Amino acid sequence: MAAPAMSVPAISAAPQSNEVLKTIQSLRSIHGNFSGQRVPDDKVEAVIDASVRAANASNMQSYSIVVSRDPDKIQKLTGYGSSCLLLYCADYNRLLDTARHLGCEFYADNVEGFITASTNAILAAQTAVIAARSLGVDSLLTNGIHRGDIERIWTILDLPQKSCFPLIALLLGYPKSEPSHRMGRLRGPGVVHYEKYHRVTATELDELVKQHDDKELSLGLNDEWRKKGYKHYLDWFYKDWVTGRKPTTAEGPMFKRLKKSAFVDTQSA
Amino acid sequence: MAAPAMSVPAISAAPQSNEVLKTIQSLRSIHGNFSGQRVPDDKVEAVIDASVRAANASNMQSYSIVVSRDPDKIQKLTGYGSSCLLLYCADYNRLLDTARHLGCEFYADNVEGFITASTNAILAAQTAVIAARSLGVDSLLTNGIHRGDIERIWTILDLPQKSCFPLIALLLGYPKSEPSHRMGRLRGPGVVHYEKYHRVTATELDELVKQHDDKELSLGLNDEWRKKGYKHYLDWFYKDWVTGRKPTTAEGPMFKRLKKSAFVDTQSA
Repeated sequence: MAAPAMSVPAISAAPQSNEVLKTIQSLRSIHGNFSGQRVPDDKVEAVIDASVRAANASNMQSYSIVVSRDPDKIQKLTGYGSSCLLLYCADYNRLLDTARHLGCEFYADNVEGFITASTNAILAAQTAVIAARSLGVDSLLTNGIHRGDIERIWTILDLPQKSCFPLIALLLGYPKSEPSHRMGRLRGPGVVHYEKYHRVTATELDELVKQHDDKELSLGLNDEWRKKGYKHYLDWFYKDWVTGRKPTTAEGPMFKRLKKSAFVDTQSA
Repeated sequence: MAAPAMSVPAISAAPQSNEVLKTIQSLRSIHGNFSGQRVPDDKVEAVIDASVRAANASNMQSYSIVVSRDPDKIQKLTGYGSSCLLLYCADYNRLLDTARHLGCEFYADNVEGFITASTNAILAAQTAVIAARSLGVDSLLTNGIHRGDIERIWTILDLPQKSCFPLIALLLGYPKSEPSHRMGRLRGPGVVHYEKYHRVTATELDELVKQHDDKELSLGLNDEWRKKGYKHYLDWFYKDWVTGRKPTTAEGPMFKRLKKSAFVDTQSA
């Protein structure tokens, strides 16, 4: 199969269309402007019913979904207002407790265990997002839980200290107003590769920079960079937006907490 | 909201039903018995069009999807036969190359960067699974790529040595024969928690053991345990199936490779 010409954003599903693809193409994130309208319990339960249908390694379901309907608590946990939180955690505690109950051994305390469990958890989370959208419920996936004092998540929700790690918060709700546009997506060089990894060429890099500057393609988070005098959106992105990350020999808070949760090799033997 | 009574497997979406929920409820994994029928290119492209619509942090799309239509290559990479592989990788190389191209700095070389990128990648992967199913295409998500000599993935696909890590292989195809049953899922205590983390009680543990023994619920991977003389499915599961993991002070191959990929804190400053 020849690599198709770069098309950004890709809305080329023309010959293949159905209700599921339409729902997926209509997905959007609602950033901190949910209306006060509460998501009904039966919809939340239907979303959870769907979520657990995602595939998972050895049918272990090595995850937990912590549901909250308490807006104050949700604000403290995520930094956003919403009437419904589904918190997806990599979690082996049910499996560890069941093993102990039967007098068996079970061990998942390393990075491999973490990757397996987090993969299972995120597969379930995205299934929930799509199910919710099909029920007319919008969402925001946020890692706001990892910002600030990460220990508050364990404290507020009584999470087990070991073998449980919250990965992503899924907030459900209805938008205050319809978003003005749908975010664009890359689906060409540097994202989709055919048969071998293709390192983007200088020409393709020029093209990527240009595409991010093109308002019609909606790849950027906002238009601030124009006002701030940057030449390109990506200049703003790298110099103003993602500057928090710096090379360091210190361990970051996420790594420290992952070690505390016994998900890093050599920590828990 | 009160915690609902435990219902395993959960097929309780009765009052809420639509084409999307039906598609999700019909998801199943095809384990190594795809027919020879090739998935057409236009369906694969429609699946990719859908996949990139998943939400992602700061619209960075910090992932790569490596597509292969070469059954020999797919066998070597995953251990399974299939006419189509979508390999989902956490990947910052496009972002790093674009930053360098603009003379900007960008840094994602730590566990936090890995968790962000892998979350983005898996959200996209599950979107592909659901899109495929809606087009009549079945799938298998496998971490077979992590078994055996993990370096082969980098060699065969020319993956960048740093800031790129293959997480899950999505195989697409058509089943040789219809699966005899749908796997059951837990969605009660130990999986879904309301307002606070609920540690499973002794009574609930007994119930979980019983449920795994109940053939009607289809929670187990197979029936071998009966023939092998185990009292419970979970005895077989812990004593025969997941015995590969042992406490150790040595770093496992996944952790070593993650370090080599510069996704572990303090490794790449």
